[in-house]
Amino acid sequence: MLIEAVYHRPKLNWGYPYDRETIHLRLRTKKQDVKEVWALAGDKYMWEKSKERVQMHVFATDDLFDYWECEVVPPFRRIKYGFLLKNDDEEIWMDEDKFGKEEPKMDRLFDIPFINPVDVFTPPAWVKDAVFYQIFPERFANGDPSINPKDTLPWGEKPEWFNFFGGDLQGIIDHLDHLTDLGINAIYMTPIFKATTNHKYDTEDYMELDPHFGDKETLKKLITTCHDKGIRVMFDAVFNHSGKTFAPFVDVQEKGEKSKYKDWFHVRKFPLAVEDGIPTYDTFDFEPLMPKLNTENPEVKEYLLNVAKYWVEEFGIDGWRLDVADEVDHHFWREFRQAVKSINPDVYILGEIWHESSPWLQGDQFDAVMNYPFKNAVTDFFVEDTTDALTFAHAIGTQMSRYPRQVTEVSFNLLDSHDTARALTLAKGNKDRLKLAVTFQMTYSGTPCIYYGDEFGMEGENDPDCRRCMVWDEKDQDLELFAFYQQLISLRKQYPALRQGTFKFLHAKEGNNGLIYERSDDEDTFVIAMNSSSEPVTVSIDVETSKWENMLDQTTLQVENGRLEEKLPAFAFVILRAVQ
Amino acid sequence: MLIEAVYHRPKLNWGYPYDRETIHLRLRTKKQDVKEVWALAGDKYMWEKSKERVQMHVFATDDLFDYWECEVVPPFRRIKYGFLLKNDDEEIWMDEDKFGKEEPKMDRLFDIPFINPVDVFTPPAWVKDAVFYQIFPERFANGDPSINPKDTLPWGEKPEWFNFFGGDLQGIIDHLDHLTDLGINAIYMTPIFKATTNHKYDTEDYMELDPHFGDKETLKKLITTCHDKGIRVMFDAVFNHSGKTFAPFVDVQEKGEKSKYKDWFHVRKFPLAVEDGIPTYDTFDFEPLMPKLNTENPEVKEYLLNVAKYWVEEFGIDGWRLDVADEVDHHFWREFRQAVKSINPDVYILGEIWHESSPWLQGDQFDAVMNYPFKNAVTDFFVEDTTDALTFAHAIGTQMSRYPRQVTEVSFNLLDSHDTARALTLAKGNKDRLKLAVTFQMTYSGTPCIYYGDEFGMEGENDPDCRRCMVWDEKDQDLELFAFYQQLISLRKQYPALRQGTFKFLHAKEGNNGLIYERSDDEDTFVIAMNSSSEPVTVSIDVETSKWENMLDQTTLQVENGRLEEKLPAFAFVILRAVQ
Repeated sequence: MLIEAVYHRPKLNWGYPYDRETIHLRLRTKKQDVKEVWALAGDKYMWEKSKERVQMHVFATDDLFDYWECEVVPPFRRIKYGFLLKNDDEEIWMDEDKFGKEEPKMDRLFDIPFINPVDVFTPPAWVKDAVFYQIFPERFANGDPSINPKDTLPWGEKPEWFNFFGGDLQGIIDHLDHLTDLGINAIYMTPIFKATTNHKYDTEDYMELDPHFGDKETLKKLITTCHDKGIRVMFDAVFNHSGKTFAPFVDVQEKGEKSKYKDWFHVRKFPLAVEDGIPTYDTFDFEPLMPKLNTENPEVKEYLLNVAKYWVEEFGIDGWRLDVADEVDHHFWREFRQAVKSINPDVYILGEIWHESSPWLQGDQFDAVMNYPFKNAVTDFFVEDTTDALTFAHAIGTQMSRYPRQVTEVSFNLLDSHDTARALTLAKGNKDRLKLAVTFQMTYSGTPCIYYGDEFGMEGENDPDCRRCMVWDEKDQDLELFAFYQQLISLRKQYPALRQGTFKFLHAKEGNNGLIYERSDDEDTFVIAMNSSSEPVTVSIDVETSKWENMLDQTTLQVENGRLEEKLPAFAFVILRAVQ
Repeated sequence: MLIEAVYHRPKLNWGYPYDRETIHLRLRTKKQDVKEVWALAGDKYMWEKSKERVQMHVFATDDLFDYWECEVVPPFRRIKYGFLLKNDDEEIWMDEDKFGKEEPKMDRLFDIPFINPVDVFTPPAWVKDAVFYQIFPERFANGDPSINPKDTLPWGEKPEWFNFFGGDLQGIIDHLDHLTDLGINAIYMTPIFKATTNHKYDTEDYMELDPHFGDKETLKKLITTCHDKGIRVMFDAVFNHSGKTFAPFVDVQEKGEKSKYKDWFHVRKFPLAVEDGIPTYDTFDFEPLMPKLNTENPEVKEYLLNVAKYWVEEFGIDGWRLDVADEVDHHFWREFRQAVKSINPDVYILGEIWHESSPWLQGDQFDAVMNYPFKNAVTDFFVEDTTDALTFAHAIGTQMSRYPRQVTEVSFNLLDSHDTARALTLAKGNKDRLKLAVTFQMTYSGTPCIYYGDEFGMEGENDPDCRRCMVWDEKDQDLELFAFYQQLISLRKQYPALRQGTFKFLHAKEGNNGLIYERSDDEDTFVIAMNSSSEPVTVSIDVETSKWENMLDQTTLQVENGRLEEKLPAFAFVILRAVQ
C-alpha cells in the first residue's frame, strides 16, 4: 500500500458537514492500490460505546488517485475518526499523526468537534434546479433605439473593442418569450451599471443603470416579468475595481494626495500616472481604466455593501456574480455574504474564479464559482478533441474530489462566455461536437449556463468577437440546434436524477472516445453513452435492468444477457432511462 | 519520482503571504526522492516578462516526506506559479491539474491572486518574545483569607474534585516577585469569573469576578502591577458553555420552553433533564453542569462579545485563551477577533485545540493554539522515553510543515497544564528528563509556557492531582531546578536566535537518543546537543565554525578538523554558541 499517496485533512473537501446532521468523510489513495477503506468514528466523550466502522466507497477517480467517501450521522453532532485501509495482504490504520498496524488511540484521531449550523455550507436550493442563460446586454437586443449610444452601428456589424450596437433592457424584455421557449429559468446579465465601455466592467456609478440600457422603471419591469415567468435574475458586481470615471477616482486623479478618496484605491505613488505601461496605482491587470478598489477601507466597504444590498432589497435580484472575485480580500466577501444573505438567504453568490477555488467555497463566502475547469475539460474532450475519454473522466473526477458535494451541486457549469471563444467556434463549426458538450453539461451536476446565441449556432473567436449581436433574423438561426437545446433542457427539468442524482462514469478508456456514465436517484436511473469521434464506436457495460427507454426518440431497448452494447455512429449519443 | 506523494494547494500552510510583500510557497515530496525543487512564478498579467525560477529548500522533514519552501516577493503582490522537480534522471513539472514534461501553460498554474493586507495573518509581535506562566488561581497562593470559600482546607492538602484551598488574586500579587525572579513576562490565568467549582470553568457571571478570588479593584492592582513589571496578562474565556448557575440557564431550567432564554442553548428536548446519563441539551462532554451556549443566537453573541471587549477595554488584559474553542462556530470566532482586535490589535487570541488546527489558524480567528502536539512529541521522547530522536524530529517536522511560519512563531508550547499530568510525574520523578524537555521548549520557536510549580519540581497525576497547592515553603522547593529554569529563560531572552531564529535538526537517528539541532539568525548561531538516555552518547556533526562558547558554563570549545563531537553523559546537554 502506498501510504505516501494517502491523504486526508479535516474540513475543506475532506471532512465536512453536508447538512446539519450529516458529515461526509473522504480519503484519497493511490489509484487501484487499496481494496477497502473504513472510517472508524465515534463520540470522543463516549468513545468505546459509540465508535463504529463505516465502509467507504470510491466516488471519484483521476489518473493518480481513488477518492473514497462515506456519510456519518453522529447523534451528538461531533466525531473523532480515523481510517482503516485494507487490501489482500495488508491492513493499515491512519490517524492524525501517522500510519500504523494498531487501532489508534482516540486522542490522536482526527476531529470534527461540533456541527454548528451556521458553519454548514448551504447554497440556495433553487440553484440545483436552475438552467442559466448569460446575456451581454449591449449585444442581446435593441428594444429602445431612443437611448442608443452615440455612433450606434447597425445591428449585426462586426463587434470591436469600442463599438456599440444599442442593446438594452427593453430588448431583453421583448425577447423573454425566446428564453421561456428555450426552457431556461435564470438569467445572468453582465454589468448594467453606468460605465463608459460596451461591456460596462468599468463602473462609473454603482447605484445607477447605464442610461443606454434603460432606466430603473424598465429594470423593474424586466425583473417582475422574469419573476412572473419563473426566471431568476443575476447581476454582475464589479467590486474589485471601479472605472476611471467613478467619482471618487476622478477626485483622486484631480486632487492627488489631497483627495479625501485617496485611500479608496491602492495608490503606490502620487501623482497618478502610467509609467512604462504600468500605472502607479494597482489596477485590474495593468489597465489604467480599472483602478483597484481598497475593499479594506471601511468607507469603501460600506459603500459597496450598500450597493450589494440596494439591488437585492429594491429590485429583488436573485444573484450576484462577482467579477475578478479572487483579487478582493476574503474579509470583504465574508461581510458581503452576511449583508446579502441577511436580506435574502436565497440570493446566489457566484464568484468569477478560473482556478481552484476551495478558499472561497467554505460556506462563508461564495455559493459557487464560474466553473472554468469544467469548461476546460469539456472543451478538451468534446469540442477540440485533444484528449480521450479517460483523460476527460479523470479531469471531472479531480473536480468532484476537490469540493464538498454541495459545491458540485451548484457549480456554474459553462461552455463559453463573454471572456472566451464560443464553443462552436472552438469546435471549428462542428455542431455535433457542440451537441455532445451540451448533452454532458445538461446531464451533469451543477447549474448549466448557456451563453446567449449558442442555442442558434452563433460563432465567435475570443473577445470582442464572441460578443457579436444576437441573431434575431430567423434565417440566420439554427432552429434544429435550438430544438436540441430545448429537448435537453426539458429532459433535465423533467428528471431530478439528471440534476441531483448520483454521478458515476461507467466506461472511459484510454485512446478511445466512447464514454458512458450514469445518473441515478431513488426514482430513476439514466445511462448516457456518447461517441466523441468521427469514427463509429461500440461501447458496452453490464447492467441489471433489461428494459431501457431511449429518451431522445422514445424507443425501447431490450438488453440481452445483462450486457448493454451501443454501436454509436460518429458523434452519436443516447440517453437511456431504466424502465422498471 | 513518486508523484503521488507530491502535494501542494494554494493557501493554508502551502502558499500564503508571510507579510504584506512576501509569499511563502511550499511543496511536499516523498522523503529523499527529489534532488531539487524550483518554483516558477510570475505576474499573470505580464507572464513572459516577469516569470522567474526560484530555488526551494527543505525546511522540514518527517518519516514520509520532505517539505520544501521558498520566498517570493512579487512587485505587484500577485503570482501565478508552478513547480519543477528534478533528480538525476527526471524533470517533472507540476501545475494545478497535472504533472508533465513540459513547462505548463500560464493559465493552468496555481494562483495567489492578490496579497490583500487584511488577509495577511499577523499575530501580535510581542508573543514571539514571551515566556508564559500558567496559574490556576485557586491553588497558587492565598493572599486574602477573609474571602476564603466555606470549608477551605489547609494549604497543601490533597486536591480533590470539589475541595477549596483559598487561592486568590491577592495571592498572585504577593508572589509577582517570584515570577520576575523566574524571568517570565506573561501569565495565563485559568478562569476567574464567578463560578461554583474550584476550576471556574462553569461560569455563573462573565462580568463579575469570583468573590473568593477578589474584587475588581484587586484585579486592577494585579494587572497594573504586572504591566509595571513587564508582565502581560491573559484571561480564560469559557464561551463554549456556561455554568449551570448562569442566570439565563437558570431561567430555562425554571421556565422551560417559556423562558426567553430558551434559544441561548442547544436544547434537544424540553424539559431539561438527564436521561441515562445524557442531558436533553447539548453540553461540554455530557456534563449537565456545562450547557453549551448557542453562539449563533445574536443575543448570545452580543452578550459574549461584550464580555470579550469589556475585560480588554476596562482592565487592559493582553490575551484571551479560549476554552474548548473548537466546538464553537467559526463565525463567532471571526466576530470575536474583530471585536477584540478593534480595541487592541496586540491582544493574543489563543484557542484551546488539542488536534490539528489549520481551520482556525488562517488569520481570521486565532493567533495560536495550545500546542498539545508539541507536548506529545516532547513527552514521548524526553519525558517518557517511548520514542527515539528520529521519531521526535519527525514529529516536530510534521508540525512545522502543517502551519504557516507565523503560526509556528507564536504557538503556545506547553509541557503540561491543569488538564494533564505534570511533566516531572510523567518522567517518574527523573528531573534530568524534565530539564531536557524544558531545554528544548526554551530553545524552540513559539512561546513557551510553564505550568505553575514545575519550576520547583512539583508533581501531580492527571487532574485533580495536577492542581495541587503551590509550594511556598522553601524546604519543599527544588531551588536547583528553579535556578535551571532561570538560566534557560534568561538565555532565551538574551538571544533572539533562540526565539525567532531558523530551526534545523542536524542529527537525529533511529534507535538513538542523541539529538543535535541548530538555531540561527543574522547575529548568532547556536548548536544544541542532547542525550535523552541513561547511557552515554557521542554525537557529532560537521561545522564551519571552530570556536564555540558553552552557554551553560561559559567555557570555550575549540573544534578540530571541522568536526564537532560531543561525548554526552546520561541526560546531558550543551548549548553552544558560535564565536566569530
